[in-house]
Amino acid sequence: MLQLSDNDLQKQGLVISVANNLLKFYDPDKVAIEVVAFGPGIELLRPENANRNRIESLVAQGVRFDVCLNTVDTLERETGKRPEFIAAATPVQVGVAQILLLTENGYTLVRP
Amino acid sequence: MLQLSDNDLQKQGLVISVANNLLKFYDPDKVAIEVVAFGPGIELLRPENANRNRIESLVAQGVRFDVCLNTVDTLERETGKRPEFIAAATPVQVGVAQILLLTENGYTLVRP
Amino acid sequence: MLQLSDNDLQKQGLVISVANNLLKFYDPDKVAIEVVAFGPGIELLRPENANRNRIESLVAQGVRFDVCLNTVDTLERETGKRPEFIAAATPVQVGVAQILLLTENGYTLVRP
Repeated sequence: MLQLSDNDLQKQGLVISVANNLLKFYDPDKVAIEVVAFGPGIELLRPENANRNRIESLVAQGVRFDVCLNTVDTLERETGKRPEFIAAATPVQVGVAQILLLTENGYTLVRP
Repeated sequence: MLQLSDNDLQKQGLVISVANNLLKFYDPDKVAIEVVAFGPGIELLRPENANRNRIESLVAQGVRFDVCLNTVDTLERETGKRPEFIAAATPVQVGVAQILLLTENGYTLVRP
Repeated sequence: MLQLSDNDLQKQGLVISVANNLLKFYDPDKVAIEVVAFGPGIELLRPENANRNRIESLVAQGVRFDVCLNTVDTLERETGKRPEFIAAATPVQVGVAQILLLTENGYTLVRP
């Protein structure tokens, strides 16, 4: 499981290349990769993000990208407008709670 | 367990809002939240920090905030003056050793 | 296990002082410390890095520093020149795969 909580182009690129490297290094049937984006990290999953094609390609290969609805709700309260996300993103209620759940289920958390 | 090792206002705010979200999302009797601050992260626990009220409110709700004494000792050696911390902070000898201890005891480490 | 994936002098110094503090705090026979550098973090292990002496001293005390070959390959493709690393660094194929392997073997991952 990969965590993204920064809105930083270099971090976004690093998360995506780590996911690609793990897909190449492991037997795809034996590794499950899930990226959890929360806080400023959710910018990765906006429709206008420059990495959109690479994300959609990873999702087609079985990688899951989660977007934290708690962060989305906070942004909506602060800006008066609900931000949109790509259809390839999976909504989860609280990003950090998703991290705890996956950890309990044997995932290892890495924050590139 | 939440780690803070940056002196960065946005990270400080994110750690505090993650702690608040976890308190809301889980049954408070079933989740233990401990924030470990070391290195530049200990600025969060200085008396003049803008988040002081929010920290004290979290401590009143059972969240623990640890301050790494090793970092404090290093700052004292470098500046000739021992920095002060709020009474709500719990001193621990070595922040990373505290992280290892909590991990052995079933805590999951997240660094927002 | 300590992760370094930023090219940032303050982070480099923090990783090194955390490794030193752990060596002092624990019985050296009872703690194994491995630093995994990948992405922009591999700059730490270049011959010209200002921390070279401190790294070599830590390696002499049993700390291991890993350099991600996947990152090295990427840099070689992008720049046309293969970057060099100090002999004290241990090459690993994929930094994040090394992190997963160590986690499975009981190590705790901390990213200072």
